[in-house]
Amino acid sequence: MTTQPTQEWFTVALNLVKEAGKVVRAAINKKKNIEIKSSAVDLVTESDKAVEKMLISGLSSAFPDHKFIGEESVAGGEKCVLTSEPTWIIDPIDGTMNFVHSFPYTCISVGLWVDKKAEIGIVYNPILEQMFTATKGEGAYLNGERIHTSGQTELSQSLVFAEMGTSHDPVKVDTVLTNLTTLMTKVHGIRAMGSCALNICQLATGGVDICYEYGVHAWDMAAASLLVTEAGGVVVDTEGTS
Amino acid sequence: MTTQPTQEWFTVALNLVKEAGKVVRAAINKKKNIEIKSSAVDLVTESDKAVEKMLISGLSSAFPDHKFIGEESVAGGEKCVLTSEPTWIIDPIDGTMNFVHSFPYTCISVGLWVDKKAEIGIVYNPILEQMFTATKGEGAYLNGERIHTSGQTELSQSLVFAEMGTSHDPVKVDTVLTNLTTLMTKVHGIRAMGSCALNICQLATGGVDICYEYGVHAWDMAAASLLVTEAGGVVVDTEGTS
Repeated sequence: MTTQPTQEWFTVALNLVKEAGKVVRAAINKKKNIEIKSSAVDLVTESDKAVEKMLISGLSSAFPDHKFIGEESVAGGEKCVLTSEPTWIIDPIDGTMNFVHSFPYTCISVGLWVDKKAEIGIVYNPILEQMFTATKGEGAYLNGERIHTSGQTELSQSLVFAEMGTSHDPVKVDTVLTNLTTLMTKVHGIRAMGSCALNICQLATGGVDICYEYGVHAWDMAAASLLVTEAGGVVVDTEGTS
Repeated sequence: MTTQPTQEWFTVALNLVKEAGKVVRAAINKKKNIEIKSSAVDLVTESDKAVEKMLISGLSSAFPDHKFIGEESVAGGEKCVLTSEPTWIIDPIDGTMNFVHSFPYTCISVGLWVDKKAEIGIVYNPILEQMFTATKGEGAYLNGERIHTSGQTELSQSLVFAEMGTSHDPVKVDTVLTNLTTLMTKVHGIRAMGSCALNICQLATGGVDICYEYGVHAWDMAAASLLVTEAGGVVVDTEGTS
């Protein structure tokens, strides 16, 4: 059973994520003021910043002792350090490229890690109204209904979410294309959606069987990784370590 | 203004598509009995057949003079001939691979062509509750709200729905990979969703700027092509002919 503090943390975070969802929903079909981060395809919008600020402000006022790692705060120069303290790891808008294009495959991702382990995962697509939630040991849910990974173990029967990437760096592009070339005739099908957190959550529903990504950040998977493990799946690095 | 017969055709078809959507919705998370068509990745399920039968039965009893082109009927040996007569062109489940995997990016596609031109287009994703509709000259709609293409004309700023394909034929695989290689560093981003009809409808919403597909069938785009033109976009072949 979820312990009392986890339940309280979860409830506060869930309500804040729902509120933040309104900001994303209101903005998705409007013109966005876009800033370019590391390259012409690494984007940040006012909504990314507004949502992160809203979430950190709400969570830190409810839980003054908790720590934070947020994508935009780190981009702004803050350190990205995970201690044993309860730490909220936030991607205010995952799938920013999709969001910028009004393609409704975008989400807010909020994970709480305690003792360097995932305790709470909340991933919310406010456009398609998909709320993915998990607390450690309590299973994974989509809009309140329990979800499970597919259990598929045959590569040839697997639908795969591939990383298409947005980088134009030649080494990265080569990695993406080599991986696609290797997989294309070995799997049932390949899809590329452009949101790491939603991809992982789709894996948790059993809607796809595998997803992979190179060069992920903590905020891309801090919440969604708990969804997968609570749904019966595994998350591993390229060495096969979970 | 939509003329009276078109309005009646549209209403009858819309109601049938909604009914057929219940079949897809009920089946998507269950085990499917899959038949293999031309290859191990060209699939048909009982639901494909049931939905097509339901739609043709309902439409032909309402409009006995109308003609039909249905994906599964053609696969079963019926001729695929478009005359000037009112002809319903049906893909009972577009994105069958997604449907089989319970990945909710799948749809029913019903187009009516008259005088060899698209008159009505209905594309319905019953899982995500997205009903795309268009009648000639009356605009394109998603769930009753008018939609428009993005108007983007710069390739470098475009989000592209690429064809990933399911074929393992070496020539086809090479085409897919060559196209991806060519585009990857020239565009804003690439996505691959696995439903031609829904891809085209997403284009009609402005959520992506381009989508391309080689070797499409009439039923893949009979309905969705009207959505795009009514939303302000263009549909062209590889020669640039619309």
